[in-house]
Amino acid sequence: MTKSLFDSRVPHPEPSTLSAFARNGLSRLAEGRAEDCLETAFAVEGAHILAFAGNKLILKHDSQVLDPLFAPYELPELKPDLENAVLLGHQPSGEPRIAVPVTCALEELASHFKAEDARTLYREELLGEELLGEVAQAVSLLHWNSTHKFCGRCGSATESRIGGYKRVCPSCDNQLFPRTDPVVIMLAVDEANDRVLMGRSHRFPEGMYSCLAGFVEPGETIEDAVRRETLEESGIQIGRVRYHASQPWPMPHSLMIGCFAEAVTLDIARDESELADCRWFTREQAEAMAENRSTDGTTAPLKGAIAYRLLRDWLDWVD
Amino acid sequence: MTKSLFDSRVPHPEPSTLSAFARNGLSRLAEGRAEDCLETAFAVEGAHILAFAGNKLILKHDSQVLDPLFAPYELPELKPDLENAVLLGHQPSGEPRIAVPVTCALEELASHFKAEDARTLYREELLGEELLGEVAQAVSLLHWNSTHKFCGRCGSATESRIGGYKRVCPSCDNQLFPRTDPVVIMLAVDEANDRVLMGRSHRFPEGMYSCLAGFVEPGETIEDAVRRETLEESGIQIGRVRYHASQPWPMPHSLMIGCFAEAVTLDIARDESELADCRWFTREQAEAMAENRSTDGTTAPLKGAIAYRLLRDWLDWVD
Repeated sequence: MTKSLFDSRVPHPEPSTLSAFARNGLSRLAEGRAEDCLETAFAVEGAHILAFAGNKLILKHDSQVLDPLFAPYELPELKPDLENAVLLGHQPSGEPRIAVPVTCALEELASHFKAEDARTLYREELLGEELLGEVAQAVSLLHWNSTHKFCGRCGSATESRIGGYKRVCPSCDNQLFPRTDPVVIMLAVDEANDRVLMGRSHRFPEGMYSCLAGFVEPGETIEDAVRRETLEESGIQIGRVRYHASQPWPMPHSLMIGCFAEAVTLDIARDESELADCRWFTREQAEAMAENRSTDGTTAPLKGAIAYRLLRDWLDWVD
Repeated sequence: MTKSLFDSRVPHPEPSTLSAFARNGLSRLAEGRAEDCLETAFAVEGAHILAFAGNKLILKHDSQVLDPLFAPYELPELKPDLENAVLLGHQPSGEPRIAVPVTCALEELASHFKAEDARTLYREELLGEELLGEVAQAVSLLHWNSTHKFCGRCGSATESRIGGYKRVCPSCDNQLFPRTDPVVIMLAVDEANDRVLMGRSHRFPEGMYSCLAGFVEPGETIEDAVRRETLEESGIQIGRVRYHASQPWPMPHSLMIGCFAEAVTLDIARDESELADCRWFTREQAEAMAENRSTDGTTAPLKGAIAYRLLRDWLDWVD
């Protein structure tokens, strides 16, 4: 019996499903977005709206629950900017989900509303996984629309089309499409000594270490980006690279591409402007960090982070 | 003996190195680009320039050779736009490589010059692999600079910084960074019947079939994008997804992410607006296409395409 191309020794069928922002049950029908799809969606019974003040999701709250889903009739008091709304997609039931930027200032919001950014929603586990995925999609698209109100080619005002997935310039006919920034994030592994490389950026919480990461540059493969970024930040040379999982990261519109990276040198030469520290961690140290029981003050990234996934799956690898 | 995390049954150590545009030996030093790095680079003895008229690389040619490398003193007759030049990086020898847009019209070019776009350079194998990689990087960055001359937030003129890797808006302090668009491209495999799915877009050369492909959307994992695009274009449902290789694709600045996709349904429902045809190909048919010996007029993508790599590596998979 021939083995399947899809067999692997990964501890999960699809590690990409296990990180925050990665679950999204909406049907996008990317190829079938009509010019009037937003109008049509607003008119559907049961349409629900995610409302954003800048990059913050507005939630209705009482003592019991936080509810981010607005019906169309609840929007006017938030002063919606319907010109820049985005059709996210449809629930399996057919119910449309729409993201709407609002112009109501945060300090003017009534006391039964609160507003939180995507990072806080994720860190404080304020939403279920599927809603968090919809928020990631919404934040990325609203940010892209808000930063492309003028044409980069000629400077004229642009207009939103096909539910917020395209903008056009009426002056020079330029067409603009949403942006997603690929970022490599990698756990470098020293297999001979059973250790992994992690660093801390100057802005990390005290004691937290994570995988190194950086933007893929134009004209670069994923593997070359992993090797370049690891070398630039830590001085460690990388041989083989193995893709592991991906994660949407809406700060504001990245695609994290998580890889294992084979360390072929061991002496660290840290880029001090980028990293406050960078070290090798033994399996025992890494396991204690991942399980929140390290005694030296070091901590791992949160469970929803793809960096946690890389660390955990290295620890749990199926031989 | 524990197996290495980096062992695999892939027929090559790193399939990403085998496609066009993927080799690039320049040191980018992404973290260390100084404000005056372009001026410094132009002053280095041995600095060489790739000159572009729009998206076309200018080559010096006589009856024997095509040479795309200009010395600084050769530039003036091409009317260089030095404000929008890009420092690509440095050769291992320390020699800088710079990309310069020129304003000389194509019809004004002297007869010992010719100008070709990246697709032609690749198809007609007019450059070595490393130069082709540098051209990919140059095309992506010059296109990005040329389409971000005005601020998307406020409409003011932007200015180039750190060798063309950043633009800033002096009016609103917006900072813009180069754009790379992740695209999934996938070979769907029906393992039970030993077949693969390929389609042809309306614009393909007669008889050519290739992998399905589409942009990763904001808020989507690579795996979800593979499943969504395959379903939307072909009606085929995908289960497991396996990353295989990546490729820079400078039309104008994509990152192709090549995957194998496990087909879990077999009945094709083609999106007629996207595809002129879509079919299953047996191993024998696929092998004949990849080896240019098919007798029914069907052909595979060119060898430098990541779609060819997916097809070839499926044929050559190590059990």
